[in-house]
Amino acid sequence: MSDVLELSELSSDECYALLADRHVGRLGVIVDGYPLIIPVNYATDLFTIVIRSRPGTKLAAAEHGNVTFQVDEFEHGSKTGWSVLVRGQAEIVTPEHSPAIRAATERTGLVPWAPGDGYVWVRIISHGITGRRIAATGGPEEWWLGTAAYM
Amino acid sequence: MSDVLELSELSSDECYALLADRHVGRLGVIVDGYPLIIPVNYATDLFTIVIRSRPGTKLAAAEHGNVTFQVDEFEHGSKTGWSVLVRGQAEIVTPEHSPAIRAATERTGLVPWAPGDGYVWVRIISHGITGRRIAATGGPEEWWLGTAAYM
Repeated sequence: MSDVLELSELSSDECYALLADRHVGRLGVIVDGYPLIIPVNYATDLFTIVIRSRPGTKLAAAEHGNVTFQVDEFEHGSKTGWSVLVRGQAEIVTPEHSPAIRAATERTGLVPWAPGDGYVWVRIISHGITGRRIAATGGPEEWWLGTAAYM
Repeated sequence: MSDVLELSELSSDECYALLADRHVGRLGVIVDGYPLIIPVNYATDLFTIVIRSRPGTKLAAAEHGNVTFQVDEFEHGSKTGWSVLVRGQAEIVTPEHSPAIRAATERTGLVPWAPGDGYVWVRIISHGITGRRIAATGGPEEWWLGTAAYM
């Protein structure tokens, strides 16, 4: 029943447009050998994702390894959905960054959820972006999505 | 403005109840040093997550390392949301598994999205589950969620 679900790859332009249009995504970071998935609010500065965080184990892990950033949306009713995945590197913004980069980062106006000091600006520099869209075109079944699409 | 957002930890009972109530989550798997985040439909067999997949690089990686499985829901309107994260191990179901486990796995009735052969049943055995709920209680701002909640 190949008409149940249609799958298409998104261009990087489409991926970045979807990314720029959302506010909450998921940071993937390897901690203690587990690929942790952490929901986080974010903003974008062109092709770079901007988040805010407090120093800690996970931020340290993010800073010293590859990270991913994922955004998706699946709608039960219309049986459609998409997912975008950025592979990249997390970089804490420090005074050693150029004034232009610091200004562009802060211009996003991103506000951390909790009060208090100690938040740092973090930029996720993209190594590459991929995305898929699914659209069910028939069948009475519950819509579903298999790993094969990504594997 | 600590009244803007309230954050609470979920008990494992609550986490498993939310997990059992959904159909699409995200598999976290480390491939080529990146913590990939892969949307996937799933079912549950008690405390175990069941997915279907085709053999490939990512399934091989999942089988030989720690994986995570994440489900969340954030509602813009009511400014509430939750996220549940399972840390575990992926295990392809083979004839060497007991008939009881194979039967329980297949009884989930999970159907892969694409037609064709070659799908295997995969069980994600939980090493532990954690979850958080957020609820904004005031403030005119856009609701948001920071990494600090998880870091």
